[in-house]
Amino acid sequence: MAGFHLPLYRTNLIRSSSSPAPSAYTKPTVVTQNLSYWNSIYSDIESHLKKVIPIRDPVSIFEPMHHLTFAPPRTTAPALCVAACEAVGGNREDAIVAASAIHLMHATIYTHDHLLLTDRVGREPESEIPHRFGTNIELLIADGIMPFGFELLAGSAGDNSEKILKVIVEITGAIGSQEMVAGEDGGVGRPAGLLHGCGAACGAIIGGGNVEEIDRLKRFGLYVGKIQGLLSEKSKNEGCEMELLETWRALALKELEYFDSRKVEQISSIVGV
Amino acid sequence: MAGFHLPLYRTNLIRSSSSPAPSAYTKPTVVTQNLSYWNSIYSDIESHLKKVIPIRDPVSIFEPMHHLTFAPPRTTAPALCVAACEAVGGNREDAIVAASAIHLMHATIYTHDHLLLTDRVGREPESEIPHRFGTNIELLIADGIMPFGFELLAGSAGDNSEKILKVIVEITGAIGSQEMVAGEDGGVGRPAGLLHGCGAACGAIIGGGNVEEIDRLKRFGLYVGKIQGLLSEKSKNEGCEMELLETWRALALKELEYFDSRKVEQISSIVGV
Repeated sequence: MAGFHLPLYRTNLIRSSSSPAPSAYTKPTVVTQNLSYWNSIYSDIESHLKKVIPIRDPVSIFEPMHHLTFAPPRTTAPALCVAACEAVGGNREDAIVAASAIHLMHATIYTHDHLLLTDRVGREPESEIPHRFGTNIELLIADGIMPFGFELLAGSAGDNSEKILKVIVEITGAIGSQEMVAGEDGGVGRPAGLLHGCGAACGAIIGGGNVEEIDRLKRFGLYVGKIQGLLSEKSKNEGCEMELLETWRALALKELEYFDSRKVEQISSIVGV
Repeated sequence: MAGFHLPLYRTNLIRSSSSPAPSAYTKPTVVTQNLSYWNSIYSDIESHLKKVIPIRDPVSIFEPMHHLTFAPPRTTAPALCVAACEAVGGNREDAIVAASAIHLMHATIYTHDHLLLTDRVGREPESEIPHRFGTNIELLIADGIMPFGFELLAGSAGDNSEKILKVIVEITGAIGSQEMVAGEDGGVGRPAGLLHGCGAACGAIIGGGNVEEIDRLKRFGLYVGKIQGLLSEKSKNEGCEMELLETWRALALKELEYFDSRKVEQISSIVGV
């Protein structure tokens, strides 16, 4: 599977490893992505999450918790955490808890961003998304999923208290209200890309990267997040800002020039080289 | 002000230090509470929160964040954190960040528990609570307030990484979805009292208490939470389970017998002796 060709516009929300359908509205940039590498990471993260969030009694709590954990479309932010850990020479298993925690943040954000609220005017009909549980349950259970992510992290610290606290600072910095963005219409939203930068930074911290490595991988992740955000918008709008995309891709790869190229071969494949 | 008499049924939601109005529906248990002690704690926590959550640009984010932080009725859980720290011989200032974080958890929970959702049938009309901002903003900003609490904690660790991680484990254990309770009607809710037990445990951890002291103060806090939950219900229902109340109060005070009575004089006053 190594070197599997994947149109880049699909990399944001990969639901399975099946071949993407060709699209008529745009000529996709065909890129070489090491899909087997990324799929093995997703698989490891999902296995861990299934273990720590089983469906058990009381099912009225754990069934929605399990469902809301796995319902959101896949994001690469947790996978970047694992890849960044490996890029700085760390062990994959050390990064799985942090990657799982980042996925849980994504799950809470996704659930809350798609709650059926009456005052969400001008947005896509949320009713297009299947809502198996009521709004009240989705709200409260997702409220519990977020701290559960921090609980997993704090409980995993062992002799790595300082690393884990740095990871918590990274995660809270990416999802806290200080990071909310105010739209021109006076509305409030979440900025794109932050969770990807956070994922890469957390992996580098856990893998024992130095400050320079952490900073560079964080910026790499931020560009990945921006690229994927743009591609996601593109798939909706049919507009394509290829120039901007190429600029970000070049900036992302520039951050990796600092590293031994063999070490960052896998993580760089996320932007398709 | 020391020794100010306060009917116990008011201790749950003290909004100011003004004298409580006498109630016709029940004969309140008049208790002696060191109100000046508790007010000085509230004052210290609020000062800290005002400092870290100022109203600043962009105001569309920080004004609701500030408002939603201070709008919920006061709960004693953060104050118990400070009092427990002092009870084990710690310094008040060391517990202020943890107490503030616990308040921020309370603020998120309160905001989300009172969002105007269409499927919250059979509940008190949430419209009785003033909603200055729309549901979407209240949801998203409160989503940011919770991680901001963890960010404050993680950023305050300094040389106390292990203590702060224990505090994070306590807090996530009190608010995580694993702690949600399933009602007989199949609904999902938040258990009463957990945040109070968490507050007392966190204070004891930060103050350097040993395992026995932490456990006992946690159980003390849990009883305080149960008592205050019952009193809060009582004020709604006019029913009064005085016997249960007295049992819990006795059990709470029993936990404090382990300590030097002078050291727990202040914290014990929360249950009115």
